[in-house]
Amino acid sequence: MRDLHALSLRVQGGRLEVLDQRLLPDLELWLPVQETEQLVTLVRALALRGAPLIGVAAAVQLGLHSEKEKDPRRLRMAALALREARPTAVNLMHAMDRMLGALERGADLAAEAEAIFAEDVALCAAISSRAADFLADGDGVLTHCNTGGLATAGIGTALGAIRYAHEAGKKLHVYVDETRPLLQGARLTTWELEKLKIPFTLICDSMAGALLQKGKVQKVIVGADRIAANGDVANKIGTYGLAVLARHHGVPFYVAAPSTTLDPSCATGKEIPIEERDAAEVRAGLPVWNPAFDVTPRALIQAIVLEDRVL
Amino acid sequence: MRDLHALSLRVQGGRLEVLDQRLLPDLELWLPVQETEQLVTLVRALALRGAPLIGVAAAVQLGLHSEKEKDPRRLRMAALALREARPTAVNLMHAMDRMLGALERGADLAAEAEAIFAEDVALCAAISSRAADFLADGDGVLTHCNTGGLATAGIGTALGAIRYAHEAGKKLHVYVDETRPLLQGARLTTWELEKLKIPFTLICDSMAGALLQKGKVQKVIVGADRIAANGDVANKIGTYGLAVLARHHGVPFYVAAPSTTLDPSCATGKEIPIEERDAAEVRAGLPVWNPAFDVTPRALIQAIVLEDRVL
Repeated sequence: MRDLHALSLRVQGGRLEVLDQRLLPDLELWLPVQETEQLVTLVRALALRGAPLIGVAAAVQLGLHSEKEKDPRRLRMAALALREARPTAVNLMHAMDRMLGALERGADLAAEAEAIFAEDVALCAAISSRAADFLADGDGVLTHCNTGGLATAGIGTALGAIRYAHEAGKKLHVYVDETRPLLQGARLTTWELEKLKIPFTLICDSMAGALLQKGKVQKVIVGADRIAANGDVANKIGTYGLAVLARHHGVPFYVAAPSTTLDPSCATGKEIPIEERDAAEVRAGLPVWNPAFDVTPRALIQAIVLEDRVL
Repeated sequence: MRDLHALSLRVQGGRLEVLDQRLLPDLELWLPVQETEQLVTLVRALALRGAPLIGVAAAVQLGLHSEKEKDPRRLRMAALALREARPTAVNLMHAMDRMLGALERGADLAAEAEAIFAEDVALCAAISSRAADFLADGDGVLTHCNTGGLATAGIGTALGAIRYAHEAGKKLHVYVDETRPLLQGARLTTWELEKLKIPFTLICDSMAGALLQKGKVQKVIVGADRIAANGDVANKIGTYGLAVLARHHGVPFYVAAPSTTLDPSCATGKEIPIEERDAAEVRAGLPVWNPAFDVTPRALIQAIVLEDRVL
């Protein structure tokens, strides 16, 4: 496989490395990935995260694996193990189904993985360009979790749109939800915004209501982990509450995502499986409910911006 | 002054001690309070917290101080310093105004402090009893921050209502918002609920929306730091967002508070000063907005339960 470079994933000399997102921003540590099972563990532990990125990473790992492992049965088992690493984001399943299709027809898995990587880069650019049009000069823009270069092979989705709007000269101020329990907003989105020199203010998730009440937010924009056929969107826990708050204040709520996030097999959000994670992520030793995602009904969403169309 | 005992404040042999709420639940450390300035520091640092409790503690400290310090000018200065320790909760100001009135008419400040302590205990019981009537057998009850014995001289306000309803045999399940940034829900409310053996589940603040969406919550009940003349309520940051979410789901939202929380000098919530705290409470080294409170408009509140009436 040729060398590949993304903000938190790289292939050099046929070796996959991922940036350990658990340690950001304190430490930038690249972890070499040698085994499929190791990648599954890293995805489950959220060392590697971001709905588009985990799909790309799984494809790349399978592509690299195929350069040594020629037994299709073993490659198929590896693809199925990767496919089940996390249950909510559908990009991973789509990527693995595509790799399994390539395997079945005897295509080059490394080339297929390279194509998936390149396509994600192109998807990000197209989504970001389209979604940036919804952001206006002077807007306060509230976002949740991390949807930037750390979450994709390209420049991101919702955060990519913010970046493109900023680079087009629009003055934006970004409000970043810290995104408990794992603080992807506080740790990752602020890290990206600092590098991009885009002005921002970090808030606790519970402060979004007061911020909207004060009129500081003109747009809310988030990513997606899975979009049902009726337009209901599963995304990081807290998204639904934000959408209700945005609606209450008459503020438009946008979702920016690649079409690989669409899942026509889920008629509505009710059919999207929601991953529940370990209590210790919130607080050890207590009874905790810790869903990683929630479902925002279509009715609360102003527009879903895909790379090729706006729903 | 006679000995006094509350869950996180005690007077023994003329000496005030407060339980350091920053260290709960990991460590139960009682701090001796010798100087007024020290109490001001502890209140600012939230070692001592809870709108009713800081008023009681300030009165008790001033009462003890008056047993040694006989210069009314110095006592007056001490009262004014205490009065300004935190800007949002009005109970503290009311307690200090009452002590200043006693000082002016030459009354016994220690006796006045004892009366304030005893009255808070009685207020809590009356509020809790009245508010418990709004909680029904089988309810899922969502609460925010800590409004129990740790926040008052008595059994609390909103959490006191939950306790009374539970003790009356109603089966409740309490959902506890962790209450970022200082986690009063995760650290303090769960600590109280465990002691009281009331079933609960801890959630991140951002999960409240999904919890309401799932129909797990039949009532939301919170405390208050200040209530304006028109019924707008200032309370821990995040309260406003909860009230909007509750309204969106048709779930009643209750406020339980002592009448010492009423401030007729504020016509509406707009006039209530909102304390903004240090960025480092959220995350050091980043631009952060960290308001400690927000204002919930009267229109989103089903009922405000005081000790003697329901608004």
